[in-house]
Amino acid sequence: MAALARSVLVTGSNRGIGLELVRQLAASPRPPQHIFATCRDPEGPRGKVNAVNLPSIRGAVRAVGSHLKDQGLNLLINNAGVSSHATLRSLDSREMLSAFATNVVGALVSLLQEFLPLLEKAAKGVGKEGLSCSRAAVINISTKLGSIGLCLKVPEAPMYPYRASKAAQNMVTRCMAAELQDKGILCVAIHPGWVKTDMGTEKVLSREQAPLMVEHSVQGILTVLANLSQDTSGAFLDWEGNTLPW
Amino acid sequence: MAALARSVLVTGSNRGIGLELVRQLAASPRPPQHIFATCRDPEGPRGKVNAVNLPSIRGAVRAVGSHLKDQGLNLLINNAGVSSHATLRSLDSREMLSAFATNVVGALVSLLQEFLPLLEKAAKGVGKEGLSCSRAAVINISTKLGSIGLCLKVPEAPMYPYRASKAAQNMVTRCMAAELQDKGILCVAIHPGWVKTDMGTEKVLSREQAPLMVEHSVQGILTVLANLSQDTSGAFLDWEGNTLPW
Ligand SMILES: NC(=O)c1ccc[n+]([C@@H]2O[C@H](COP(=O)([O-])OP(=O)(O)OC[C@H]3O[C@@H](n4cnc5c(N)ncnc54)[C@H](OP(=O)(O)O)[C@@H]3O)[C@@H](O)[C@H]2O)c1
Ligand SMILES: NC(=O)c1ccc[n+]([C@@H]2O[C@H](COP(=O)([O-])OP(=O)(O)OC[C@H]3O[C@@H](n4cnc5c(N)ncnc54)[C@H](OP(=O)(O)O)[C@@H]3O)[C@@H](O)[C@H]2O)c1
Repeated sequence: MAALARSVLVTGSNRGIGLELVRQLAASPRPPQHIFATCRDPEGPRGKVNAVNLPSIRGAVRAVGSHLKDQGLNLLINNAGVSSHATLRSLDSREMLSAFATNVVGALVSLLQEFLPLLEKAAKGVGKEGLSCSRAAVINISTKLGSIGLCLKVPEAPMYPYRASKAAQNMVTRCMAAELQDKGILCVAIHPGWVKTDMGTEKVLSREQAPLMVEHSVQGILTVLANLSQDTSGAFLDWEGNTLPW
Repeated sequence: MAALARSVLVTGSNRGIGLELVRQLAASPRPPQHIFATCRDPEGPRGKVNAVNLPSIRGAVRAVGSHLKDQGLNLLINNAGVSSHATLRSLDSREMLSAFATNVVGALVSLLQEFLPLLEKAAKGVGKEGLSCSRAAVINISTKLGSIGLCLKVPEAPMYPYRASKAAQNMVTRCMAAELQDKGILCVAIHPGWVKTDMGTEKVLSREQAPLMVEHSVQGILTVLANLSQDTSGAFLDWEGNTLPW
């Protein structure tokens, strides 16, 4: 099996799905030549530098660029994200704004804007045609809870800030897919399943409820990524490759 | 024909679709007993008080409540909104956050939170069953550009901030519909068509391009509202009553 991509960057890789993505990529029979495992605070306690912090993103772009030299970055996995529960009554404006600022603006738009030149460089690589993760791709880790179509059917509602931010994230994925396909860059939204991570088991939800081991979720995600093509750019897929409604 | 509702409140009613909604409601053969036409600055120049301004929303709730006495508010039309154009490259974070703050947080969530007691009062009114605008309803003026499903097909892309905020707004409409149906309150998202208002004709778009007169759009919207029921709560409809994909 060919390597998924020559170079991969994963955000939010200090724990949960991000950490397991890095682990499995590194342990695969043909690992990427470069794996960049980023997180907002490599030193420990959370919150020192975050996804909305532009200077820190720019520092990362410079560091990644100098490692990759002329080859650009093939695969950007936007995994970092926060959850946020609230009913209409308990909701406050700051919570709505902060989930949106993290999940859409910081972890997605600002990040992609800065890494775009490296992705474009990878997409132009010799002998690259069509769309694929081995050429150039942006994978946004989304959630079924961000599906507006399934909203009335998923009982974990209401999580207004999380759901609204992830629906907006899905829209951004789709706009990116439309804008970047001519540049040879694939964009997809992936739902990892309901996974036994800190996020998947927080608050009211007990660890037993999240059915999926992070190892299985990530195995599934990596298989889905390997099979992405022109036809699936702009899609919303789960970790088993099923299409979800927007 | 019965009145659409005994009492109606329209936001952003100083111009465009909001103004025409108020005009047609007032001119209808059986007008509502109370029409509350709100805007952020009744005195003229824009921007003095805005939809995110909680004290001003609370002042409005008190004023409306005292007019309506024990009857509550039947119909809340969240029409105020801003558009915002940007490609991935030209986009800046503040623009993303500000479109979301206006279109989702201020004009929708904060407003509904404050008006909810008046809507609940109306929903409990004697002899009221099922869901309808004459009982209690929240109508969120959305847009086809907020449809993630249609995103690749609507050529006016990319408008990242506007589209992302309106997709998030649609998610919130749907969460509200789920949460409020047991209280007898209907929630729907309506696309008014591409209308010759300031917004519909701004910037690159010429007045000729927007095909729809505001009078026709609003005639359509009011006909759609009169026909809403239990079956359409949580729906995304256009001014002709067609269902749009999320
Ligand atoms: N677990 C599930 O069941 C599930 C289901 C659907 C979707 N997802 C999605 O999967 C992704 C990963 O979730 P997970 O379950 O692995 O969650 P997790 O265990 O809570 O890890 C979240 C990761 O995101 C990082 N992060 C949070 N806020 C950040 C910010 N402002 N700036 C930079 N990094 C930030 C965290 O860093 P710190 O350690 O510094 O906080 C951490 O690395 C998320 O996008 C989530 O929405 C998860
Ligand atoms: N026109 C179209 O083709 C079209 C298509 C799809 C959807 N829509 C939607 O229809 C709704 C009305 O649009 P329109 O065409 O009538 O637009 P418009 O002519 O530009 O009027 C917008 C209205 O929203 C108000 N508003 C804007 N920002 C506000 C804020 N921060 N706080 C309070 N009020 C604010 C404006 O007040 P000021 O006068 O004080 O600025 C004005 O009353 C919007 O939600 C829009 O997204 C329009």
